[in-house]
Amino acid sequence: MNRFTVHFLPADTSIEVEEGTTVAEAAQRAELFISNLCGGEGVCGKCRVQVARGKAEADEHAKGFFSQDEIMKGYVLACQTEVHDDLEIVIPPESRMEDSKIMTGGASEVTGISQFNPIVKKIYLDLPAPTSEDNVPDIERISRELRKQFGWHTFDIPLDCLQNLSDKLRQSDWKVTVTLARKGKSYRILKVDSLDTSSANYGVAVDVGTTTVVVQLVDLTSGKLLGSEGCHNQQATYGEDVISRVIFACGKGGTDPVQRAVIKNINQLIKKLTQEKDIPRDEITALVAAGNTTMSHFLLGLSPCSIRLDPYVPTADEFPQIRAQEIGIEINPRGILEAIPCVASYVGGDIVAGVMSCGIPERDEVRGLIDIGTNGEIAIGNKDWLVCCSASAGPAFEGGGTRCGMRAIKGAIEKVEILDGQLTYQTVGNARPRGICGSGLIDCIYELVKNGIIDPGGKFQRERADDRLRIEENIPEYVIAYPDETESGAAVVITESDIDNLIKSKGAVFAAIKSLTDYIGLGFDMIETFYVAGGFGSYLDIGKAIAIGLLPDIPKERIQFIGNSSLTGARMCLLSESAMETCINVSRSMTNIELSTYQPFTDEYIAALFLPHTNRKLFPTVSY
Amino acid sequence: MNRFTVHFLPADTSIEVEEGTTVAEAAQRAELFISNLCGGEGVCGKCRVQVARGKAEADEHAKGFFSQDEIMKGYVLACQTEVHDDLEIVIPPESRMEDSKIMTGGASEVTGISQFNPIVKKIYLDLPAPTSEDNVPDIERISRELRKQFGWHTFDIPLDCLQNLSDKLRQSDWKVTVTLARKGKSYRILKVDSLDTSSANYGVAVDVGTTTVVVQLVDLTSGKLLGSEGCHNQQATYGEDVISRVIFACGKGGTDPVQRAVIKNINQLIKKLTQEKDIPRDEITALVAAGNTTMSHFLLGLSPCSIRLDPYVPTADEFPQIRAQEIGIEINPRGILEAIPCVASYVGGDIVAGVMSCGIPERDEVRGLIDIGTNGEIAIGNKDWLVCCSASAGPAFEGGGTRCGMRAIKGAIEKVEILDGQLTYQTVGNARPRGICGSGLIDCIYELVKNGIIDPGGKFQRERADDRLRIEENIPEYVIAYPDETESGAAVVITESDIDNLIKSKGAVFAAIKSLTDYIGLGFDMIETFYVAGGFGSYLDIGKAIAIGLLPDIPKERIQFIGNSSLTGARMCLLSESAMETCINVSRSMTNIELSTYQPFTDEYIAALFLPHTNRKLFPTVSY
Repeated sequence: MNRFTVHFLPADTSIEVEEGTTVAEAAQRAELFISNLCGGEGVCGKCRVQVARGKAEADEHAKGFFSQDEIMKGYVLACQTEVHDDLEIVIPPESRMEDSKIMTGGASEVTGISQFNPIVKKIYLDLPAPTSEDNVPDIERISRELRKQFGWHTFDIPLDCLQNLSDKLRQSDWKVTVTLARKGKSYRILKVDSLDTSSANYGVAVDVGTTTVVVQLVDLTSGKLLGSEGCHNQQATYGEDVISRVIFACGKGGTDPVQRAVIKNINQLIKKLTQEKDIPRDEITALVAAGNTTMSHFLLGLSPCSIRLDPYVPTADEFPQIRAQEIGIEINPRGILEAIPCVASYVGGDIVAGVMSCGIPERDEVRGLIDIGTNGEIAIGNKDWLVCCSASAGPAFEGGGTRCGMRAIKGAIEKVEILDGQLTYQTVGNARPRGICGSGLIDCIYELVKNGIIDPGGKFQRERADDRLRIEENIPEYVIAYPDETESGAAVVITESDIDNLIKSKGAVFAAIKSLTDYIGLGFDMIETFYVAGGFGSYLDIGKAIAIGLLPDIPKERIQFIGNSSLTGARMCLLSESAMETCINVSRSMTNIELSTYQPFTDEYIAALFLPHTNRKLFPTVSY
Repeated sequence: MNRFTVHFLPADTSIEVEEGTTVAEAAQRAELFISNLCGGEGVCGKCRVQVARGKAEADEHAKGFFSQDEIMKGYVLACQTEVHDDLEIVIPPESRMEDSKIMTGGASEVTGISQFNPIVKKIYLDLPAPTSEDNVPDIERISRELRKQFGWHTFDIPLDCLQNLSDKLRQSDWKVTVTLARKGKSYRILKVDSLDTSSANYGVAVDVGTTTVVVQLVDLTSGKLLGSEGCHNQQATYGEDVISRVIFACGKGGTDPVQRAVIKNINQLIKKLTQEKDIPRDEITALVAAGNTTMSHFLLGLSPCSIRLDPYVPTADEFPQIRAQEIGIEINPRGILEAIPCVASYVGGDIVAGVMSCGIPERDEVRGLIDIGTNGEIAIGNKDWLVCCSASAGPAFEGGGTRCGMRAIKGAIEKVEILDGQLTYQTVGNARPRGICGSGLIDCIYELVKNGIIDPGGKFQRERADDRLRIEENIPEYVIAYPDETESGAAVVITESDIDNLIKSKGAVFAAIKSLTDYIGLGFDMIETFYVAGGFGSYLDIGKAIAIGLLPDIPKERIQFIGNSSLTGARMCLLSESAMETCINVSRSMTNIELSTYQPFTDEYIAALFLPHTNRKLFPTVSY
């Protein structure tokens, strides 16, 4: 394999790496550290570097983060750019981590780093023993040392940390590790441990979706993403959608069982991840959860009842920092839980996290986020203003509400094509098909329309269909994978009812986008980039999503698929105090447009219930 | 009985009252409200008014609060001044309560009052129901209304208050009472109750003394003192003095039983008071405790071990606000506990509370506080500087460590005189004698010296004694009350060992006063007023206390007995956020002089172990 030399400026350091190594990895090996909040997934845009010499091209992610001018000047994302040439790379100041030891050492060296600054830190302190001349109280000895490092803060301490502090300090010869959480404007000491335990500090990011719950385990000393696990939200026992769960909770059922269900999910996922990675759960000191407003209420055990009643008022939009164990989450008993703040009853912390994660509130340019989950939420804005809205999309794109729907995990059909009458598909992990996920369903709808197998209303055109169309128990269905191809031995199919659900889903999402852009008086062309988020896995065919009328018909390069931005946002909040602050600002400043009382939305929705969209002028480039 | 008219200015309101009514009561009946933090005991100095016409003299308390010039101008304390003439009274701005409804109504009308501002308030809110135009989250509806009233604060809320908030608001038709505690720079919502419960809000002030525990029950809506109860500190089971309790706790015994003992005391006293006053304990929302540093550590369950070891370092000098139930205090489960901050290992929150309560940190003049408890603590200063020191005085003045010693409660001999060979005494409540309290012991020592019954070393001079001197079981003792006079039928006596203890106690207190004034280079004459605090009940003969060499020999009018200033300070902190703030400032700014390593103290102590003091120049006016 070829080897190339990468020369970094302004550090003036060179390193030889194998072809295909990323620029970020090369920098790391050279002991130069570049900001990185998303764990190298190309979605945070923090690792911007400039290629001064040699050939290296900006990948598709870069387009979302750089202006055309910057791309011309050679800006790329270090984590997404592979080395295929001898390179000279300039690391600009905004991408530099101040302290080069951050990735290797303990969090005691976090000082001064503006970007990587986890919400819970473990700080090792080697304190001077008290003398007659220096006989401040024990806790003041600790906070004095912390003030030296953090400067400007008060340090709050709970009684149970104080109670055995004196003995602990003396038994460990004044060498202790303080676990510290940012809380509002000050810091809270969560615990004080003997000796240096600062190298083991982990956090958990949780996307609490209506249909799915996804948990990521993160190393808070390095920012590294260690693993992800997801499952269906067990709350489905109490209702498939948010409203039916609220009805259950506000009737005889009560909020408790619904809360317990999701907490059980989260605990199971945490257990799985910590076992896989051989990390004691006790070393997890922080959990950040992003969810829609109702999910956040259920998670914290707040009554969700008024959310579904006019005028749609939640109990809270900002949530207190709590000890995770208060709600039964099994991490360190002193570990904290932060729920990302919401905007309104139907625009939750998931959207706030997403808007923050794709940097909309930092930019001059107007950008949009389309989050396609069980609800479709749209946010548009820039650093000066933010508006958003929400429409019920149903669970179809998340693998719910369709016969063979599943999450985008191993065995899910994620890509479908019908070429010359031949249907081919691709599954996640190239495994035998087990079902079909959101991106597969979008492809499928597109192909069925294109090949004339369904009509604009979504009904099968039996006369034009091939032999994959069959009738089982009086219900017509179209076979994507035959029984002998699948894992279970049952066919993976799509039914008319599935198609109907998908049409309603895509219609609601598009109507919301259209209504919001009309409301603010901006044409699609005025919006520089649309970020598309959702649990589609790693794949979403933007062109087909446009063609079925889910996304607006703008140049494909202006639409960027960013995966689960709620989860990315939650992870960024674990890793950066300022990310959490941005979320609070977004939640306070974003204006929510209530679509349920906005007549144009209903009109747009009805117009969008066809394949393709009835108003062909809206989709000038789409032809089947 | 005569009736007089009191005319108040600037309100221009007159009222006719019976002779002997206090000016404060007259004002209250005229619906004019005068600041009052001490419950009318003449110790807070907040109710200053000026007598513009008519005859009314400043009482002895006034001398501590007013300059000579002010006294000449007719300033008096409204709570201590009786009406015996037609009067014209000017209420100066600093004594006026801004809102005249404060004493009559709920705490919802507290707004704007700078002095009376309890640390826990119940605020009744009649909220507008949400509409489509005004659909802020429930908690924001509450904090918005609170911000209207309090202006400048953030409102923190614990999860358990949020959890049922939504239903509570709707069930009570948006009429709720919010219980609110000041915490640092912001407010914390402790609970939200349906409808208007703001008229029932009580607090408890606790003086956690080494020998005695005293609790006061206070109405937080009016500031009124409802009752006091005290008892011996049950921690005595684990050692009579602080050091032996610390040795117990840091040996096999552990801190727990010592903590439980005092909490049992406090709970019993609270129970007694609430039963007497027929007040549900659940309506108590705040407890403020003042104690020496070790007592505060025991109360909160903090390890006291390092306090007694060189270099005498406590775990903490400021303590977190906690829920009182965290340490087993039986008031409202959401009720808070604040322990007044300390200065050093041997200068505690009791002294800080005392210094604050007598207004030393507000004055230009240099004043001193002498607190005679189990420790003797001295603080001297003014608004610019504060110094303090502490010396172990032993429990003699608090009724411990002497054969017949007792607290200054009913039946305690509080006054003793021997005139022409005849001994007379007076008891608290004029009851049959049960023992002798601190002030009685001081009188006793004085009379024994004066009548030549003991020599300067404190030994009985048998040849000069009367027939009250007797030998029981080989121990000489002097009878104060004969068996047929006492409640129990046993004599109340004083022994040589008692006298020896009292000499050591008075010697330590005086040596501390002398060392501290020498240290700062101020003669006694430079100190405008000495406040003397201690659990002496209502009586202390200043002249006799000077004569035995306990207090410095300065003009008697410059020494003011103020009773239990630790308790008064704790009560003021319940009633005034700014009092608590002052305590924090005092604890941070007061300089502690460590006497144990200060050689002049030892010399002063040895010189003070005689009756009268060996250095007669220090006591020019004393002659027997």
